[in-house]
Amino acid sequence: MLTRYKMTMAYDGHLFHGFQLQPDQRTVQGTVEDALKKMTKGKRVIVQGSGRTDAGVHAIGQVIHFDYPGKTIPANRMILAMNSMMPMDIIFNKCQIVDEDFHARYSIKGKWYRYRVSLDHFVNPFKRFYTGHFPYQLNISKMQEAARDLLGKHDFTSFAASGGQIEDKVRTIYYVNIEKDEKENEVIFDFIGSGFLYNMVRIMVAALLEIGNGRRPIHDLKRVISAKDRQEVRQTAQASGLYLYHVFYEDIPQKYRQDQHL
Amino acid sequence: MLTRYKMTMAYDGHLFHGFQLQPDQRTVQGTVEDALKKMTKGKRVIVQGSGRTDAGVHAIGQVIHFDYPGKTIPANRMILAMNSMMPMDIIFNKCQIVDEDFHARYSIKGKWYRYRVSLDHFVNPFKRFYTGHFPYQLNISKMQEAARDLLGKHDFTSFAASGGQIEDKVRTIYYVNIEKDEKENEVIFDFIGSGFLYNMVRIMVAALLEIGNGRRPIHDLKRVISAKDRQEVRQTAQASGLYLYHVFYEDIPQKYRQDQHL
Repeated sequence: MLTRYKMTMAYDGHLFHGFQLQPDQRTVQGTVEDALKKMTKGKRVIVQGSGRTDAGVHAIGQVIHFDYPGKTIPANRMILAMNSMMPMDIIFNKCQIVDEDFHARYSIKGKWYRYRVSLDHFVNPFKRFYTGHFPYQLNISKMQEAARDLLGKHDFTSFAASGGQIEDKVRTIYYVNIEKDEKENEVIFDFIGSGFLYNMVRIMVAALLEIGNGRRPIHDLKRVISAKDRQEVRQTAQASGLYLYHVFYEDIPQKYRQDQHL
Repeated sequence: MLTRYKMTMAYDGHLFHGFQLQPDQRTVQGTVEDALKKMTKGKRVIVQGSGRTDAGVHAIGQVIHFDYPGKTIPANRMILAMNSMMPMDIIFNKCQIVDEDFHARYSIKGKWYRYRVSLDHFVNPFKRFYTGHFPYQLNISKMQEAARDLLGKHDFTSFAASGGQIEDKVRTIYYVNIEKDEKENEVIFDFIGSGFLYNMVRIMVAALLEIGNGRRPIHDLKRVISAKDRQEVRQTAQASGLYLYHVFYEDIPQKYRQDQHL
């Protein structure tokens, strides 16, 4: 008998070689699968994530599912058992028993990524693993205006790192918000979309920072999108600032559908 | 010729075996002295801190001084040179050339420590190195009332870990503030005093948390202080939540002299 569990987790990515299982590397998937192997006394339970995160990238709301063999464990007991076996840099915050038709990856309706950029003059020791760093002149309202050009359905070839294996590069961006956190001296970028290509958020942030710094015209992203050429944006913002913030399995709430009000 | 430099620094303590130089251990003092040794092409320059911080304890405003031999380097050049040689977990934020009568330790008029406690149900992966953790019931106004009993000049023997070598255990606490940070779900403790004994802040926080949890009567600290017995408080809050926040070399500003308004 198999029971399918959906679990929501946060992790500090700075000591992981990313989410996906790799031989001889410390990965999130590997760490969770090792714990499940102990619980099942040796059976391999495959963990399916909503998607991969790269080395150094964090998660606030990553979602996984797995099929647990043997006797069903109540969800509130499963979360305690799993948390007791996790290292300090992973925490499960939610656990539900779900139907077999739920799939952490294929049931997705959208994803929310957050990117934090520290504006401190020097790299802040407390933020070195948790933010990107941009100690240059930055006009936030320019970036806010530019970000509107990303909204809607586009071919994002120009924003996909080579190395991705996905052919179809059309995605829809539903929501972009860029805000200054005065207390932390950071800029926070939020992106909600149907899905994101390899490194796409980090490349969009890099391009937006160039606009905020005045090195690109304010509506340059329109041109970059239509060029369908990765060489149009050569920079990629650092992994340390990126957070998989939330995964939507229900329709995106109307308040996040800026694309419908263009 | 010697030039005395006063420098203010922040460090993330989680990968250091404390401030003080120790053979074969990574320490803050050792790291700074190694950099100075490179600058002086092999001469040892002794770094004097305002005081030690333990393994895992952080600093936002630690102050050091040292006497640099040879040609005087302007302060704005010194800070750039030093920062370029520091690892990512140390940053210098200020540098001044000072008179020989300035001493990072002996010129102190007071110190400010901050302690952060996360109230999250599980340990938050992003805060494991940066906060203490108290996932129990907590009444903040009780702690605020109790903290007033610490103000003023007292013999703090009950709050000094064994291992300290200091005979005179009389210190003055000028200011205590305890506040909830709703957004972070943390309690922030601030203490300003003439000086603090070994582990004193962490022991005071542990006792205050017991009061906030209802395991000690609200004015128990009066009794604990007069007992002059470390056994009265057996707990010590974790190192990870503690920050040396500021060192005062001038008179403590009036707004922080709560002890004068008792």
